[in-house]
Formats: sequence, structure tokens, C-alpha cells
Amino acid sequence: MRKVIVYIATSLDGYIATEDDDLSFLSIVEKEGEDYGYTSFMAEIDTVVLGNKTYQTVLDMGHLPHTDKECYVYTRTPRPTTRSPYFYTQPLPTLIAELKQRAGKDIFIDGGAHTIHALLLADLIDEFYISIIPILLGSGITLFKNGRTDLPLQLVSAKSFDTGLVQLQYRRY
Amino acid sequence: MRKVIVYIATSLDGYIATEDDDLSFLSIVEKEGEDYGYTSFMAEIDTVVLGNKTYQTVLDMGHLPHTDKECYVYTRTPRPTTRSPYFYTQPLPTLIAELKQRAGKDIFIDGGAHTIHALLLADLIDEFYISIIPILLGSGITLFKNGRTDLPLQLVSAKSFDTGLVQLQYRRY
Repeated sequence: MRKVIVYIATSLDGYIATEDDDLSFLSIVEKEGEDYGYTSFMAEIDTVVLGNKTYQTVLDMGHLPHTDKECYVYTRTPRPTTRSPYFYTQPLPTLIAELKQRAGKDIFIDGGAHTIHALLLADLIDEFYISIIPILLGSGITLFKNGRTDLPLQLVSAKSFDTGLVQLQYRRY
Repeated sequence: MRKVIVYIATSLDGYIATEDDDLSFLSIVEKEGEDYGYTSFMAEIDTVVLGNKTYQTVLDMGHLPHTDKECYVYTRTPRPTTRSPYFYTQPLPTLIAELKQRAGKDIFIDGGAHTIHALLLADLIDEFYISIIPILLGSGITLFKNGRTDLPLQLVSAKSFDTGLVQLQYRRY
């Protein structure tokens, strides 16, 4: 069964970006030749789901995200297209159900917080890779939003790097 | 110099208790003979500072907290006493300055979130031990409150345990 996987970085105090979508805190763990497992993680992925705000943020940074994957942008604004990225306006559980009915590799949830929250509410996330950046940001956009039921997780691995990044992997029971 | 140290457990989504101060999620990592370093940590401590709500919660659970330490309860309600626990009504930075002028072992900040926030605002925390419990609580009292400036930290260690608890130690640069 294809797994639905969140792979995301957060500050120690739980922020994935500043209030104005600044990600520059990530630079404190940038290191030549160190991608924290991202390339090998992405090798097991053929489909990416991300929220429209995250998509636009990446576009604004001058990148076209995930051109080598089937990419779904979760948005309220329909924009018909015949090839990836697809702009998806139905509820996310419908998309995940459709994707899981097809054969394929794992499905990467590339954020943001709103998209992750919608999937958590429906208990549709199978695995989490959470990279904790060694900084307290003090304010910003929280990775996890209030208002879910509790969900015990199984720790798969905890890896620390000499940059101070700690990468935690959990899966659902 | 005596260090000011936070040692606290949090859910993966950053909650130290439910909205009604329930700590029962901690039980998922309870294991006979495993205290996650608490005893050896406390051996280097002779002074404890905690908020009044945390103090009352421990009392309500039938314990008198930290009877073998000099204990300061941060509260708005003066309650004169000649021995520990002392009820402290001045600003916390004043207390920390007083304690640091005296010789002694390290100072343990035993929560709660309000007390930790007040100390973070004044940049008075030297070290953090954060034990991440493998659960998403979904809602509750957040360990870190919004509205600080950013503070890069140095990762000292990351230890994982077979219960799924991960204990991260950071210090200020």
C-alpha cells in the first residue's frame, strides 16, 4: 500500500516559517553535501501533494516544484490543466483515496500546515519525518494546529547531525 | 556560574498538558526502572522555580514538590513564609539575578509554560532538556508561546529510548 508521508522541517518551538512565510532560518543547518536524507526519501516518492500557499511560495522563490513527480496543488480555485501540476479543489481525503486506489510509490505531503491539518483530521498520514532545526523562532506559522484528537505514534528513528538538526521518523500504529 | 535549566516533556505537537491540565499522556513512556535521566539531572540541582499553577497541580496530585530543594513558586498572591517553598511575587528576572549572585548548584525551571515564557522573554534560560513523547495530543497547553525574538541554540545531545521517547538537550550560544 502506498504510504502518505509528511517530510518537513520545524523550529524547536514548532514553527515551519515566520508569519510572512520566511524560511531563512533553515539556512543555519545548510551544509555542503548534506541533504538530510531528502534525495533518498524522494527516490521512494512519485506523487506530491501540497497546499496552494506553499506552492506559490516555492514559485515566488523562482522554482517549479517537483517537475519530475505527479504533483497536486490543493486549492479553492479551479484551474483546469491536462498535466501536472494538477489544481485540486475537492476535499483532500477524496484525493488520497483516489491516489491509494492506483498503483505507485509513496505520496509526499509537502505542506503547508493547513494541508497537514486537513489530513491529520481525517487520520490519513502514515509517516512523519520531522527535522528539528536548533532554533527557537519565537513566532510564526505552527506546524501543528490545535483541534484534533490524540494520535499515539511509533518512533522509527531519531538521527542527529553535527549541524544540530535532529530528524525524527514516526509512523502510525 | 549556576545554570538555569528547563527540563520538561512535551507531545510531538508541542503540548505539555491537555487544556484541563491532564498529564496522563506521559504514561505511554512509563517503564519500570527508566527515569530518562531525571535522577542524575536532579543531583546537579539545589533550587527549583515553578509557576503557581504547576505547583497547585502537583499538590492536587497528592505530592509536595521538591521538598529536598530550595523551591520558589512564582505567583501573584503573596504568602509570607520563612522556609521553602517560597512564594515569589516579583518579576522572575529579579529572582534569577538574586539566585545567580549566590553560590549553589543549577536552577531547575519546572514549568509551566507561562513561567518558561517569562524567562525566555528575558533570555534567561541557559539549557533545555526536552523529552518528546511519541504522541500527537491534538490540543492543549503549548510549551512555547508566541511572541518572542528568535534564539539559535546549540544541540548538545539527542537520545532515543525504546519507549519512543526522544530527549533533546540544547544550550544557549
